[in-house]
Amino acid sequence: MEQSVRECRSASLQSICRAPIASLDCMEEFQSTAEQLCLQLTSGGLQGYTTPTSVSRQTSVVTPGLRYRNLGKSGLRVSSVGLGTWVTFGGNVSEEQAESVVVAAYDAGVNLFDISEAHSGTRAEIELGNILQKKNWKRHTYVVATKIYWNAKSEERGLSRKHIISSVQASLARLKLSYIDIVIVHKCDPMCPTEEIVRAMTHVISQGWVMYWGTSRWSPVEIMEAYTNCRQFNCITPIIEQTEYHIFCREKAELYLPELYNKIGVGLMAWSPISMNLISGRGEENTVGCLTKPSLKQKYGSFSWVEDETTLMNKDERTQVEEMQKQREKLKEISTLASRMGCSLTQLTIAWTLKHESVQCLLIGASTPQQFYHALYSLQLVPKINATIMSELDKILENKPVRPPMISTLALR
Amino acid sequence: MEQSVRECRSASLQSICRAPIASLDCMEEFQSTAEQLCLQLTSGGLQGYTTPTSVSRQTSVVTPGLRYRNLGKSGLRVSSVGLGTWVTFGGNVSEEQAESVVVAAYDAGVNLFDISEAHSGTRAEIELGNILQKKNWKRHTYVVATKIYWNAKSEERGLSRKHIISSVQASLARLKLSYIDIVIVHKCDPMCPTEEIVRAMTHVISQGWVMYWGTSRWSPVEIMEAYTNCRQFNCITPIIEQTEYHIFCREKAELYLPELYNKIGVGLMAWSPISMNLISGRGEENTVGCLTKPSLKQKYGSFSWVEDETTLMNKDERTQVEEMQKQREKLKEISTLASRMGCSLTQLTIAWTLKHESVQCLLIGASTPQQFYHALYSLQLVPKINATIMSELDKILENKPVRPPMISTLALR
Amino acid sequence: MEQSVRECRSASLQSICRAPIASLDCMEEFQSTAEQLCLQLTSGGLQGYTTPTSVSRQTSVVTPGLRYRNLGKSGLRVSSVGLGTWVTFGGNVSEEQAESVVVAAYDAGVNLFDISEAHSGTRAEIELGNILQKKNWKRHTYVVATKIYWNAKSEERGLSRKHIISSVQASLARLKLSYIDIVIVHKCDPMCPTEEIVRAMTHVISQGWVMYWGTSRWSPVEIMEAYTNCRQFNCITPIIEQTEYHIFCREKAELYLPELYNKIGVGLMAWSPISMNLISGRGEENTVGCLTKPSLKQKYGSFSWVEDETTLMNKDERTQVEEMQKQREKLKEISTLASRMGCSLTQLTIAWTLKHESVQCLLIGASTPQQFYHALYSLQLVPKINATIMSELDKILENKPVRPPMISTLALR
Amino acid sequence: MEQSVRECRSASLQSICRAPIASLDCMEEFQSTAEQLCLQLTSGGLQGYTTPTSVSRQTSVVTPGLRYRNLGKSGLRVSSVGLGTWVTFGGNVSEEQAESVVVAAYDAGVNLFDISEAHSGTRAEIELGNILQKKNWKRHTYVVATKIYWNAKSEERGLSRKHIISSVQASLARLKLSYIDIVIVHKCDPMCPTEEIVRAMTHVISQGWVMYWGTSRWSPVEIMEAYTNCRQFNCITPIIEQTEYHIFCREKAELYLPELYNKIGVGLMAWSPISMNLISGRGEENTVGCLTKPSLKQKYGSFSWVEDETTLMNKDERTQVEEMQKQREKLKEISTLASRMGCSLTQLTIAWTLKHESVQCLLIGASTPQQFYHALYSLQLVPKINATIMSELDKILENKPVRPPMISTLALR
Repeated sequence: MEQSVRECRSASLQSICRAPIASLDCMEEFQSTAEQLCLQLTSGGLQGYTTPTSVSRQTSVVTPGLRYRNLGKSGLRVSSVGLGTWVTFGGNVSEEQAESVVVAAYDAGVNLFDISEAHSGTRAEIELGNILQKKNWKRHTYVVATKIYWNAKSEERGLSRKHIISSVQASLARLKLSYIDIVIVHKCDPMCPTEEIVRAMTHVISQGWVMYWGTSRWSPVEIMEAYTNCRQFNCITPIIEQTEYHIFCREKAELYLPELYNKIGVGLMAWSPISMNLISGRGEENTVGCLTKPSLKQKYGSFSWVEDETTLMNKDERTQVEEMQKQREKLKEISTLASRMGCSLTQLTIAWTLKHESVQCLLIGASTPQQFYHALYSLQLVPKINATIMSELDKILENKPVRPPMISTLALR
Repeated sequence: MEQSVRECRSASLQSICRAPIASLDCMEEFQSTAEQLCLQLTSGGLQGYTTPTSVSRQTSVVTPGLRYRNLGKSGLRVSSVGLGTWVTFGGNVSEEQAESVVVAAYDAGVNLFDISEAHSGTRAEIELGNILQKKNWKRHTYVVATKIYWNAKSEERGLSRKHIISSVQASLARLKLSYIDIVIVHKCDPMCPTEEIVRAMTHVISQGWVMYWGTSRWSPVEIMEAYTNCRQFNCITPIIEQTEYHIFCREKAELYLPELYNKIGVGLMAWSPISMNLISGRGEENTVGCLTKPSLKQKYGSFSWVEDETTLMNKDERTQVEEMQKQREKLKEISTLASRMGCSLTQLTIAWTLKHESVQCLLIGASTPQQFYHALYSLQLVPKINATIMSELDKILENKPVRPPMISTLALR
Repeated sequence: MEQSVRECRSASLQSICRAPIASLDCMEEFQSTAEQLCLQLTSGGLQGYTTPTSVSRQTSVVTPGLRYRNLGKSGLRVSSVGLGTWVTFGGNVSEEQAESVVVAAYDAGVNLFDISEAHSGTRAEIELGNILQKKNWKRHTYVVATKIYWNAKSEERGLSRKHIISSVQASLARLKLSYIDIVIVHKCDPMCPTEEIVRAMTHVISQGWVMYWGTSRWSPVEIMEAYTNCRQFNCITPIIEQTEYHIFCREKAELYLPELYNKIGVGLMAWSPISMNLISGRGEENTVGCLTKPSLKQKYGSFSWVEDETTLMNKDERTQVEEMQKQREKLKEISTLASRMGCSLTQLTIAWTLKHESVQCLLIGASTPQQFYHALYSLQLVPKINATIMSELDKILENKPVRPPMISTLALR
Repeated sequence: MEQSVRECRSASLQSICRAPIASLDCMEEFQSTAEQLCLQLTSGGLQGYTTPTSVSRQTSVVTPGLRYRNLGKSGLRVSSVGLGTWVTFGGNVSEEQAESVVVAAYDAGVNLFDISEAHSGTRAEIELGNILQKKNWKRHTYVVATKIYWNAKSEERGLSRKHIISSVQASLARLKLSYIDIVIVHKCDPMCPTEEIVRAMTHVISQGWVMYWGTSRWSPVEIMEAYTNCRQFNCITPIIEQTEYHIFCREKAELYLPELYNKIGVGLMAWSPISMNLISGRGEENTVGCLTKPSLKQKYGSFSWVEDETTLMNKDERTQVEEMQKQREKLKEISTLASRMGCSLTQLTIAWTLKHESVQCLLIGASTPQQFYHALYSLQLVPKINATIMSELDKILENKPVRPPMISTLALR
């Protein structure tokens, strides 16, 4: 069984890289209808795209290229693209506009909504809860993922059974849902025993408040330790690691997480500053800054997940400037390639991420339906990224991660 | 103890094949009163049978030949014949008529009602719930079995903890019961880890929503894997496999399930197109078609359990025609035998199924009390099917399954 | 620890056989006040006994000789004498009278009330519930034990998860309590897997409905199997076996249960037809009949626990008559001994039972407070039963059980 | 991970002994703001101290020297000083005054409130519940610890599942909280199986009533046995032992509990008659009496935890008088040292306790805010207790515990 699941899964993962000929029973259900829609969609930027008004969930008409996959080796099937609500419920977006983005995503077949409290505080949960209540979609047609945040500076004072339980209860109340599909523990707390974390996560699942749990920004060793503790204490294992993954940040997602998926069934939910639309409306200069991340430091510096960027910032300034200069040049080359393919730089980088088998779900963010459709179009680029284009990209990027002869995975967090 | 249960059980299973002389304490409680009723019942088809008006549950007057047996190696005791409500709550049957069938079954001593959502959608649960509420029978006097359906095409998107929990909650609400006796997982989802399934089934049992769980259309290997996972994670093991079993479909029920019963206590709840009354009112031609099943393809094609009939349909047409011709001739011979025994073809085939020790409960379906009584009469035929008749039938059928020298059970699903 | 508990316990068990000099900290708290009351109590039958009006639970003034002991190796401490409500809520006793018996027992320091549904049906639970609600005693000051009955003839059809859960829920509703202290499974069902029983008992405890569970009329092998299953599936172990124990029924209580106590911590709650007052108001002739039990056959024949008396009844009549004649003569000799000690035959036989270390709680029954006090007085006889009197009794009875060279414990049920 | 936690922890434990230079990320968050307040606080007794009116929890302005640490190896972080409400809710303190103490503690950054029912009965829980409800502080900003008491003389009759569950439910009702953070089992009951205790504690945690559990007055062997049982039955392990620790009572806290912390993660919550303010307003004469404890016998003699002082009282009177004389002289020397350091005897002894790494949380008691601030000032003395002063104190005390060549830990309870 384990064997067959793995084979079946790896088959399904391969299938998105090929032309839609292979007809794996459980994977291809939306294939044919999807083909029809395919032609309606424009190939480029924001302007040419029109809202697919006739698309409705009942008729299974979804966005071309969108697939439904099991998250990790769990039974939960989500769309290969999820809506990361980071910018949707951010400061400048009105409630009406946020709703239009959520509705656009749902109508396009996206069934996963991810909440990043770190960016928008508790407002994201409250507003998403309002939208879900208003729309009254059937509960089994969507999947809500939210996070447990902690940091050493607030009164929550780190991860603990107390903090996990009260966080989940508070999230449930704000979302006005009877259960949350996935609760993601954001950063591992080295001061809290892993036994306490896995027991508490199993507790909130046993209470019926939560269906699955995952991690974000945990090192492979920390995830492995959680798994080991789950096995030791007969607890429920995590199903995903949510991690940053883009052209300039590849090592964890390409080297270590596929191994975890094979060994313990933990899948990969990816996001990037580009896919989350954190750099929209700024020049390419900003794109580089965003991807090398020090710029985030000022804005989101109060949240723990940006703490370790200090490492980068502490590099002497000359090195930083040199590196950003190099990446700027690489981005220019990729832009040229994107133009050649008739798409934007953003679309090409998103498609490049989706191309990688190990990404089971990529979060894309948007503050308007147009931005959302723009990113979503990347799904159709995936088949176009053939071996030639891949090798061309790798030549530009020069950062294909290779496993070092002997590596301490502790350094990867 | 394991030993004594097995002996006791096999003794009880044997007892229905013999004349009612053996008086195994725990099995024979209704024997004597049953004898009296026995004479009132006619031997043949529908015409001669009269409703046993004086039969009431309180006085333990039940149908002759009806026994109560533990389902699998569980403590749950059910009547050897259960009501499969497939056609009862089907399209053409009025609510009053459906109620009369359920009441007839209950009054006859049948304590198991099985719901097949695949056929009648959610209507079956709602109507059965209404009847049970109206009749107000004591909860411990009946057993309700319902199913968890999933398929890759609907938005439920496969088995998962999320789907199992929400299915059970929805069934409970429709049935208006405080608990369901048996929840049956219809088809195994190779994409969903077995650990997730057994943990979720144990969860719904621990919540008090469900008492027992079973499977239907799982291969012996899949059932064995579920059992192994239950043992590994200290979960509650399934008690039955619900499977098709009739004169033209014998391998799984006769070769593999008895082995599972002996080894891991999973029992057999059988049904067949004939016992479920799916062919009533049609000619024998249709009986063959129904038993070889391609005819079902058109009607119930949207449900996953008929998917693999494609195998049969894909055989080249000439082979199909030849096979149906052969079976038609066999049915003619069996009809002749039935007439000789003073019963209908339907009754003889049902009695033949009941004769097999491994069948702990056979589901019979009916859209009228008369149809129900007609099928129920088969119970009285069982003692008449002696070794001579059995060998005569086997000679006609020519399909007594034998275990191949070396077999991959994977092929059986 | 195990060691120290055992030592401490066996010390405490010995202490009731000695003069109250030893001052084991945790056992002797009521000793001194008890001494005072001791003198007020008459030595003989019903006539001379007066209700101890000044006795109130608040002041810890309890009956002399009454001790509080841990039931089995659990933390639950009960009075060494409990009230068996068999005759209290029987047919002829008015509600007022039943209440006066319960109040008398409570005021005398008895904190355990045992309900035997087998005798009085559901009335016992309802009436005891009414009394407890009316009296409004603090919940921690009393312990309620009730039973799960099943038999092969009723619609409950044997032990099962379904039956156990619904029985407990029904008992809770009748008793109007938030939890039952001890639920006792009456007779083991060989058709129900032990795993199912121990999982279901652990379930009702985890739900908070029940605090502890025990067995009655289980063979030592069945109890051992339950214990093994509890250990295998991490379930909660039973704490007592409730069993019949009197001068003519000694083997199980004296030979096998002490071994179980030592090995797996299952204690002994004893009852006898004499202690339960089932023979009050009849002559000695009836005492013999009652103790050899065929007389019970007619009255309580519909309950499973008297089923195996058939063994005795099936002995040829001459043997039976001879045996009863012998026991009649023995009873006469014991009566003489009782007169010499200034007490009744009933009191001497009860004191004889209490004298045995392995009896942690003896149930006594009464339909009036006077009967209750009469039996309760036996506590004061215990110190008077010295080695001389014990050997005298053993000489009369000639039935001190000895362990056979090699025994199949299966025969003991 | 285990390794890293331990290192991190021992680093953090060391950090309080040093000047606040080391900047261990997770420990030092309040360091800088704390520095500012430091100067406002007076150095000596009650007189010079003023309430820090501007201190509010929101701005993270806390008392200088106060740290937040994980309790045992759990994820729960508490202030290094907790409020022991022993005298706060004692007989002579009005509700208004008690509230002012609790508020003062909370505003000073103390987030742990410990209730000692033994002293103030149920009043403490009721009054603390009222204050918490009135103040409406966010639930995650404070930690409530309460106890399960039992003794052999009351009707609770020892530890048991029944007693544990009903105690917790009663405490919850009195505190009017949805959960208690820590429930501490006061004294181990040798008559109750450890399995029953750890299962019951895990039950109250699984019910959501309690977050963590601990012990008080358990011997190291008893704690180790609880841990072993937790591992055997997959139960939740205790996180702290609450124990008496002061200059004249050092052995358990200094020799045995650090070992338990290292091996099984059970931390140390300390209290002493001095830190709990049980001797305030009396002369030094009384301090000695209090620390050598026979004086407590009269006042709190009805509670089990003072039972074993009888050992001391039973020493012949001459020895007692001699010992008290010696300790009186030692206290005089320490007083002199305190004056030299510009603090009171009380403050020096509290600071001495806080100096010890193994004390994760020290309970201090107060009946007025002034008393509380007086004791709290000790935190600032800790860095002043350098190696010279420590050796001077050890020279005076002459009681630095050393592990005997071979010891039976059973004697330590």
